[in-house]
Amino acid sequence: MKIGILTSGGDAPGMNACIRAIVRYALSNGIECYGFYRGYQGILDDDHVVLKRTSVSNIIQQGGTFLQTDRCEDFLKSEYRRKAAVILRKHGIENLIVIGGDGSFKGAELLSEETGITVVGIPGTIDNDLAYTDRTLGFDTAVNTVIGAINNLRDTMQSHNKVTFVEVMGRRCGDIAFNAGLTGGAEYVLIPEMPFDIKKIAEEITESALKGKKSNLVVLAEGAGKMEEICAEFEKFSGIKPRQTRLGFIQRGGSPTYYDRLLACELGIESVKMIANGTDSRVIGVKDGKIISYGISEALKMRKQFNRSLYEDMYKLS
Amino acid sequence: MKIGILTSGGDAPGMNACIRAIVRYALSNGIECYGFYRGYQGILDDDHVVLKRTSVSNIIQQGGTFLQTDRCEDFLKSEYRRKAAVILRKHGIENLIVIGGDGSFKGAELLSEETGITVVGIPGTIDNDLAYTDRTLGFDTAVNTVIGAINNLRDTMQSHNKVTFVEVMGRRCGDIAFNAGLTGGAEYVLIPEMPFDIKKIAEEITESALKGKKSNLVVLAEGAGKMEEICAEFEKFSGIKPRQTRLGFIQRGGSPTYYDRLLACELGIESVKMIANGTDSRVIGVKDGKIISYGISEALKMRKQFNRSLYEDMYKLS
Amino acid sequence: MKIGILTSGGDAPGMNACIRAIVRYALSNGIECYGFYRGYQGILDDDHVVLKRTSVSNIIQQGGTFLQTDRCEDFLKSEYRRKAAVILRKHGIENLIVIGGDGSFKGAELLSEETGITVVGIPGTIDNDLAYTDRTLGFDTAVNTVIGAINNLRDTMQSHNKVTFVEVMGRRCGDIAFNAGLTGGAEYVLIPEMPFDIKKIAEEITESALKGKKSNLVVLAEGAGKMEEICAEFEKFSGIKPRQTRLGFIQRGGSPTYYDRLLACELGIESVKMIANGTDSRVIGVKDGKIISYGISEALKMRKQFNRSLYEDMYKLS
Amino acid sequence: MKIGILTSGGDAPGMNACIRAIVRYALSNGIECYGFYRGYQGILDDDHVVLKRTSVSNIIQQGGTFLQTDRCEDFLKSEYRRKAAVILRKHGIENLIVIGGDGSFKGAELLSEETGITVVGIPGTIDNDLAYTDRTLGFDTAVNTVIGAINNLRDTMQSHNKVTFVEVMGRRCGDIAFNAGLTGGAEYVLIPEMPFDIKKIAEEITESALKGKKSNLVVLAEGAGKMEEICAEFEKFSGIKPRQTRLGFIQRGGSPTYYDRLLACELGIESVKMIANGTDSRVIGVKDGKIISYGISEALKMRKQFNRSLYEDMYKLS
Repeated sequence: MKIGILTSGGDAPGMNACIRAIVRYALSNGIECYGFYRGYQGILDDDHVVLKRTSVSNIIQQGGTFLQTDRCEDFLKSEYRRKAAVILRKHGIENLIVIGGDGSFKGAELLSEETGITVVGIPGTIDNDLAYTDRTLGFDTAVNTVIGAINNLRDTMQSHNKVTFVEVMGRRCGDIAFNAGLTGGAEYVLIPEMPFDIKKIAEEITESALKGKKSNLVVLAEGAGKMEEICAEFEKFSGIKPRQTRLGFIQRGGSPTYYDRLLACELGIESVKMIANGTDSRVIGVKDGKIISYGISEALKMRKQFNRSLYEDMYKLS
Repeated sequence: MKIGILTSGGDAPGMNACIRAIVRYALSNGIECYGFYRGYQGILDDDHVVLKRTSVSNIIQQGGTFLQTDRCEDFLKSEYRRKAAVILRKHGIENLIVIGGDGSFKGAELLSEETGITVVGIPGTIDNDLAYTDRTLGFDTAVNTVIGAINNLRDTMQSHNKVTFVEVMGRRCGDIAFNAGLTGGAEYVLIPEMPFDIKKIAEEITESALKGKKSNLVVLAEGAGKMEEICAEFEKFSGIKPRQTRLGFIQRGGSPTYYDRLLACELGIESVKMIANGTDSRVIGVKDGKIISYGISEALKMRKQFNRSLYEDMYKLS
Repeated sequence: MKIGILTSGGDAPGMNACIRAIVRYALSNGIECYGFYRGYQGILDDDHVVLKRTSVSNIIQQGGTFLQTDRCEDFLKSEYRRKAAVILRKHGIENLIVIGGDGSFKGAELLSEETGITVVGIPGTIDNDLAYTDRTLGFDTAVNTVIGAINNLRDTMQSHNKVTFVEVMGRRCGDIAFNAGLTGGAEYVLIPEMPFDIKKIAEEITESALKGKKSNLVVLAEGAGKMEEICAEFEKFSGIKPRQTRLGFIQRGGSPTYYDRLLACELGIESVKMIANGTDSRVIGVKDGKIISYGISEALKMRKQFNRSLYEDMYKLS
Repeated sequence: MKIGILTSGGDAPGMNACIRAIVRYALSNGIECYGFYRGYQGILDDDHVVLKRTSVSNIIQQGGTFLQTDRCEDFLKSEYRRKAAVILRKHGIENLIVIGGDGSFKGAELLSEETGITVVGIPGTIDNDLAYTDRTLGFDTAVNTVIGAINNLRDTMQSHNKVTFVEVMGRRCGDIAFNAGLTGGAEYVLIPEMPFDIKKIAEEITESALKGKKSNLVVLAEGAGKMEEICAEFEKFSGIKPRQTRLGFIQRGGSPTYYDRLLACELGIESVKMIANGTDSRVIGVKDGKIISYGISEALKMRKQFNRSLYEDMYKLS
């Protein structure tokens, strides 16, 4: 039996640990592993490597993905997905493990439906923006990276009595901003899930400045609005020119945390078990502390629930 | 309404974040907070501080506990527990939040039974050795500290072809060793929950050395046996003199991870809510991703289950 | 005898360690210390604190400056400098220690000349842009922060075959970019001290991509040009759209490295010794491994020499 | 022209960066590089690799040495050194670069004298125990690792009012203990270079405890005495049982700091330049901020000077 493995979409810490788990667990069960480079593109180019135990030595602690990743435009077209199946079957591969986000899973769903290739999807994205799973690979690491950066920012903003706006990743999902902001000690967190009133924030900060509290941190998810515009509005209402920092791609890298490594191992092991047991195409994840799986289309239809009550409680602490 | 707060037993990263959450959430609900220094001893000495919002500024990111902690021999005696209740009631305090481990909860149980003071226990210990909760405050930070240390050790052991034994904390519970070891890339993990055969390990390492694998990492929980003796046995069977490292108290400190800060906030908020709603004495924790609570004696009677299947699966990766 | 202390201009890691050293060394010599908040503004507002040994406990490891810092427009005018001297003398302070950069030293020079107050300047700025000293407080920490961030960026750019441009601090001086870039493994470093040809870089990167080298890191000092324009030019010549990251204020914070702490202690001690020995106004620093000092105007006239030969040698390694 | 390269003795962060610099600088000058594994043993076994530019890609940030290191008993005998020269000359290698400490340099001196092979020695050891150079590769990283560990220890000792003894590396040289201790905020530093009176320390700590200062940190170099004995004495005189922590091998690993990477590059470049210019056998290093070199026997005869005046001044701050 042979399994294909690829990483797709944005890279995330823990992808390497997950590939290692898949390869070693599969090999210990007599299953061969083909790694395809740069996501679906690697299948189309038949750019692959046969993975041995030692191919994945010393990578559990490394950020990124040694199989590399890419977004593959061609794979949006049916003819290329059929070509991919032909190439996979040429190698005797009927089962594919895709580590990626919802765009990658959409491709997986179509590949599976159109060609009968079985795909198991593992959630790998720092954004934590998949509704069917409580956690995605890389999220824990990214949030810890952000609170480290916030720690640095607090040193300097406290030295200057500054209001600082920090933009973090998250186009549709404010989980990084919310979690890193409120545990990083930010005064405000602006996320796509919750309306906010920049005028009210400006007034509160102006007022608290009169009482002596002069440094304030506002953490902003990408998806909550354009930082420059929000800062301009803030300045208009408060008369205070805020500092702006965009953390950018440093959030994507770094050695994965223990939790992301462990989740990577558990999901990698489970995906191999499912394939060995003849699963249909599914995505796996973690819900209420347990590994779970769903049919791909079912998973992709779910809408992420925002924990508003936690949000409101946490705000009382800031 | 007034709440007493103390930290007891071994300190753990996240205790400060938890005190902050309790104080700010309580104050936002009109509840006053008295912090007692050095655990139960602080009640007996009436060594306390009235905590304001600003008393807990800028501590969410700090390891340790600014209320300090201690083991209190006197509190093992009923007369001192009665004295503690008298002092608490002198201040109008009928509810106490205790952040600590099972020894601290035992004291809490007796205080509650004998005097009618309501105690809510929050699990704060890096060891993760409480059966009723999946996680204790400080565990996530400690495991990340250990994998950081292991990363350093791997640099040097790979430069030398060395077998290295690392002892980590965990007298009764191998969770730190197991989680940090297997996600740190250790070849072996020795824990109190699982028998091990040092002769077999010695033979396997000797054999793999012949095939070219010359550096091996063995992570050992305190409770699995004396490191010196285990290393001596290993040397006897393998002829290889291993390096020994005991990580010690560095595992107790450090800025808490995002997860420990978040858990600290959630448990702190919940403890205040329970008290505001007139709870009886209970310990709280997290199970399957949800905040849960138990009667203290019920919780203390539980036995921690070891996840043997995960252990065996993870071993196939190492 | 009494000494005034202030931090001025941009904050830098090591300022707290330096204040601690000044205070404790002065007190051990029977000299009192007045800390003024927010730089020169704190003198004008007579916003000060008398510093004791315990006032500076537990700050050696903290970034930023607890005395805070600010740029003070008023101090550019002679009348305010005279007012400052009056306030200092009201407290019996004839000697002032200023931790800051060249703007702060310019103010110090004028204050000294016009009023006879003796000022000793200590170089505190992450930019390392003072010609008279090999190192400024905060530079070592900032460069280490940047190579940490670069490490994260490399994980993700290697996963994506991306060309990444990173902007780091340094308006007039490329030391952060040069040192962090070449020791961080960057392929190119763009600094104000050296001309560069973005067309040639684009061509080289395009050519090396053909040979299989697909990820490239370009580190850019603020003063070398506008990142957006340089990236647009790069894209025009290469056809490759680069990623852009601006590290921003995270470079200013963080716990100081050992070297910055040690330098802070040595400069702090030396400044007190000089004052105790009746020095005239001077700035101190480190040259060829030794603590040195210059008259302020002499120091400010020096022009920083760029080590072109090191630059060229280092480039051969990248 | 061909150069041999090896790393010998204890590994140190920066060795990889130095090998990279040697290889790339040599290749850019048309010189071939042979890396020998496990120090001198690799020559005796003729266990070598021809190093290309890409052989040293992506290692500048890695601790340890990919060429590995070992202590080689055989090399203490003249016959083996002559054998080594024969093997080197078989490959056409007349010049050898040895990265290591004084034991390795002693071997280099003898090899050079007896066989005429030219050896350039680069100081690579975390201990900073070579008299002829101000800095050795790995020292800056090791001290930063130790102050990070001390930071963790301070969290927990402050939570417990504990006296903590920490043993750090340094058999003959207290530089790690002195530098990390005093910049880490330790109250006492015990080093082989300075006598100390444990009774007096015990009395001072007992006395300061009465005044409310209850947590104290004592940093101890390996060479200052046996930790267990010193702690027993301390307990006898003070009645306080101290915590003991031995940092061990974590001090050897970790990603090198910027300074160690830069020094590695500069020394690597210089060693190649010297060989290209037909140098005799020498060791190189850094003195007063400049790269310097000495004849090997001259260097090995020097005695390291202890900076007692800095020691005494720094103590006034603790």
